[in-house]
Amino acid sequence: MDPDAVAKAFVEHYYSTFDANRAALCNLYQEGSMLTFEGQKIQGSPSIVAKLTSLPFQQCQHSITTVDCQPSGPAGGMLVFVSGNLQLAGEQHALKFSQMFHLMPTPQGSFYVLNDIFRLNYA
Amino acid sequence: MDPDAVAKAFVEHYYSTFDANRAALCNLYQEGSMLTFEGQKIQGSPSIVAKLTSLPFQQCQHSITTVDCQPSGPAGGMLVFVSGNLQLAGEQHALKFSQMFHLMPTPQGSFYVLNDIFRLNYA
Repeated sequence: MDPDAVAKAFVEHYYSTFDANRAALCNLYQEGSMLTFEGQKIQGSPSIVAKLTSLPFQQCQHSITTVDCQPSGPAGGMLVFVSGNLQLAGEQHALKFSQMFHLMPTPQGSFYVLNDIFRLNYA
Repeated sequence: MDPDAVAKAFVEHYYSTFDANRAALCNLYQEGSMLTFEGQKIQGSPSIVAKLTSLPFQQCQHSITTVDCQPSGPAGGMLVFVSGNLQLAGEQHALKFSQMFHLMPTPQGSFYVLNDIFRLNYA
């Protein structure tokens, strides 16, 4: 398993799902998952997805600038650090953002998001 | 232990040490520590400190905009996500950066940096 390839595949899957159907992100989180969104802390897949689907915009498109990843320790987790642009429908300028994910392995050989921290990078 | 207070104290200690005497950061990393600096992967405290002390600037000052933290799992680690500005001596404009740290507990009741990912946020 190439961690960089896994990280890249995860990132592509995450943001394409976000941009197409945010509610489907529920499968990537579990009960113990945490999201910190612009400083607001939310726990558990249902609450996280409720937050993401209630953001005050409908259509959006993420484009990724950088993806970095590192193994997070003996439990087989992986840290993924992303920077990119978020274009909202009807807005002239894209917003810059940084986001980190801590992915943990599932018994099925996949990964889920244990930790998720999102911040806009204001100019 | 208030995780947010620990994260804030770590961040203040890390950047004040960075700005005063980068070589002293060696105590915060261990042999298994990883740094990804603008995409370049470096492992182990000596190599990490060699990288940080060889950056092409001498004087610098970090100022922190946001600090977010989450527990990283049952091993007692903590994820710290930082955004801020990096002012280099002689430069007119500060550089924006994002950085994440994965702190792990030491037997002495302190923390060391297992994972460190740094990116400049280009405008």
